[in-house]
Amino acid sequence: MTQMELARQGRITELVRATAEREGVAAEHLAALLAQGRAVIPANRRRSLEEPRAIGEGLTIKVNANLGTSGLASDLESELRKLEAVLAAGADAVMDLSTGGDIPATRRKLLSQCPRPFGTVPIYQAALEAVQESGSVAAMESERLFAVIAEQAADGVDFVTVHAGLTQRAVALAADRVTGIVSRGGSLLACWMRANHAENPLLAEFDRLLEIAREYELTLSLGDGLRPGCLADATDAAQLHELGVLAELVKRCREAGVQAMVEGPGHLPLDQVAANVQVQKSLTGGAPFYVLGPLVTDVAPGFDHITAAIGGAVAGMAGADFICYVTPAEHLGLPTQEEAVQGVIAARIAGHAADLVRQRGARDWDDRMARARCRLDWEGQIGLAMHPETARRIHNRSGRTPDGGCSMCGDLCVFRLNAPPA
Amino acid sequence: MTQMELARQGRITELVRATAEREGVAAEHLAALLAQGRAVIPANRRRSLEEPRAIGEGLTIKVNANLGTSGLASDLESELRKLEAVLAAGADAVMDLSTGGDIPATRRKLLSQCPRPFGTVPIYQAALEAVQESGSVAAMESERLFAVIAEQAADGVDFVTVHAGLTQRAVALAADRVTGIVSRGGSLLACWMRANHAENPLLAEFDRLLEIAREYELTLSLGDGLRPGCLADATDAAQLHELGVLAELVKRCREAGVQAMVEGPGHLPLDQVAANVQVQKSLTGGAPFYVLGPLVTDVAPGFDHITAAIGGAVAGMAGADFICYVTPAEHLGLPTQEEAVQGVIAARIAGHAADLVRQRGARDWDDRMARARCRLDWEGQIGLAMHPETARRIHNRSGRTPDGGCSMCGDLCVFRLNAPPA
Repeated sequence: MTQMELARQGRITELVRATAEREGVAAEHLAALLAQGRAVIPANRRRSLEEPRAIGEGLTIKVNANLGTSGLASDLESELRKLEAVLAAGADAVMDLSTGGDIPATRRKLLSQCPRPFGTVPIYQAALEAVQESGSVAAMESERLFAVIAEQAADGVDFVTVHAGLTQRAVALAADRVTGIVSRGGSLLACWMRANHAENPLLAEFDRLLEIAREYELTLSLGDGLRPGCLADATDAAQLHELGVLAELVKRCREAGVQAMVEGPGHLPLDQVAANVQVQKSLTGGAPFYVLGPLVTDVAPGFDHITAAIGGAVAGMAGADFICYVTPAEHLGLPTQEEAVQGVIAARIAGHAADLVRQRGARDWDDRMARARCRLDWEGQIGLAMHPETARRIHNRSGRTPDGGCSMCGDLCVFRLNAPPA
Repeated sequence: MTQMELARQGRITELVRATAEREGVAAEHLAALLAQGRAVIPANRRRSLEEPRAIGEGLTIKVNANLGTSGLASDLESELRKLEAVLAAGADAVMDLSTGGDIPATRRKLLSQCPRPFGTVPIYQAALEAVQESGSVAAMESERLFAVIAEQAADGVDFVTVHAGLTQRAVALAADRVTGIVSRGGSLLACWMRANHAENPLLAEFDRLLEIAREYELTLSLGDGLRPGCLADATDAAQLHELGVLAELVKRCREAGVQAMVEGPGHLPLDQVAANVQVQKSLTGGAPFYVLGPLVTDVAPGFDHITAAIGGAVAGMAGADFICYVTPAEHLGLPTQEEAVQGVIAARIAGHAADLVRQRGARDWDDRMARARCRLDWEGQIGLAMHPETARRIHNRSGRTPDGGCSMCGDLCVFRLNAPPA
């Protein structure tokens, strides 16, 4: 039986108990969310996940960091160091999006070092194998695609992005877009569909996907192949058409006892962010929403961790549950380790800003920081900081006044001015 | 006559014409906003401001960068380099918040190099002079405070922060706060009021302030001495009491033909940001709102430019007009030049994200970027980037594929996959 089926029978598994405790919610409550498909706990039954995470309605927002080599940059050693760094920075999950090198070897090594939920986008491997063997994505057979998904599931991958909602009709609707299809998986499938004049195999043979998912307890992350790639393409007919298909697939997942979440934008103007979340939640019956950004402007490459933090915080407040990090290198190149860490912290800030609205109790951390600040307790502040190393580095640079103020205000430290005379 | 009085007479000054043109609005429209106190154009009549800015209702959001030495860090030369850097990064206005060194000399030098609106907080100089001469802030005479304001206005300062809304009653209301009073100016005044058992001189003698403002065409930025310093203190009775007083002072400014804006939080949970803006706009009859952040969590020192960008974008969407930058060094120390630039860019991102909602036409920039992206026109993308140097540095690091893709996706570049075969 799958976790969802066990939850429906009222069984509280160790996984539910452990993740509920981490969230500070009753195990029965989390089991009910799981049973209804309003939360997921990605955890492949082939491996024993040391640090599982529950993702969904009313739970703390989780952050994913993307890793992986491209044909042009990075290697396994660098990605292993990045993995360590993003876990240390607080990423809740990691996806291997390698598009170059030995993809299976990279995945297996990263997976073996990752104690938290680990995801992939199997079509990258399938498409690259097809290109290497036959020279084109169009030559990829659906057998290969499902074989790669099964291979990755057998390796122990906890969740996979599958762009199963991309239809020929949706691809046609995207024809007039400014930036077309910007999801890599969506682009690959659209290439394939155009060349083969055939429907998306992930959709046409969705039952095969459900079988694999059931066998390995693989969580399906239903990808938005048509997420907008710029503000001009946001919330358009193509995007909403695909979302409608994804909502139907969520139902099929639930019927099959398979855990599913839905992926979302992308690039959105700030005033469309909440609406996108509300529509997703309404159409899917509250399926966990996994957002990439959303980026609220197109013009800040080099700072897209910030444009994404703005959109992510607003999305989280509106109900999004899982935030994929965006790094300062987005739209420009593969991120360095330092940029990956910046991406994690920016996404965690967005998540926590939203948790403060979603979760009673989330503010305790902020209140402790405020009290440490008031006491000019610098070690306390640094210890409570989301990224203590950065806080320490900046603070230590220019020292303190004799009575403990920092270099910002010098002698006009408000906490000295406020304090009653000793 | 003051600019506001000229506008009320339907006179379109050169200043109104130039700033309206920059905004892409009709000069008559801007003059009407100015006449009603819904926009300001800070520009001291003692100097001829080369690059004036209009700030207010429906106009593009402007960004302020704080500079200045503290007793512990930086010097005039460093601050002059920072000034150049923040102007190059796109700051619309600059404030000298020096709390150490030779404050008048620093101010005059910075002012002489600043072609955009320049502001100060005169009480810092007045309080430090009092401390140096008499050993305590409490010994500051109100004569000194007004003399310093007049001195700074005569120097050509375009706008000053005056915490005139801080009353004894409001200070009492703040007694139970977690972080008390965190505005430096507010803290200084509260110290003075407690020691002297007297009302705030800026409030008690507000007419003197109006006289100086009229004489020099000095814009008053009505400071929020009680802005919350942590989430726990947000939107409390003390803050709202002061805002009520500030709203009355806005009326007195308008009656005197003096330009005024109102300063706002501070630290606010994300779901209180829009409400704070709406209340300010409602109480003050649409006075321009100048926000510091708002910071949507207390726990990310080292990354408060990001926590502030989240709050600033949401505040801007709700109607805030002027965003004071927050740098990564906030709460830790005086920012370096690099951190100041990071602060400007983060605030500009927030402002532009909100402009996209406020302003038809703001999206043209984003649309051009999207088209350059689609064409893999890297020079175009870098040229359009909010901070081209950063975009270029990241992009150039790892090069491109033979057909122009970047290192992020290598051979799986969506814009190559999307493109029809050549």
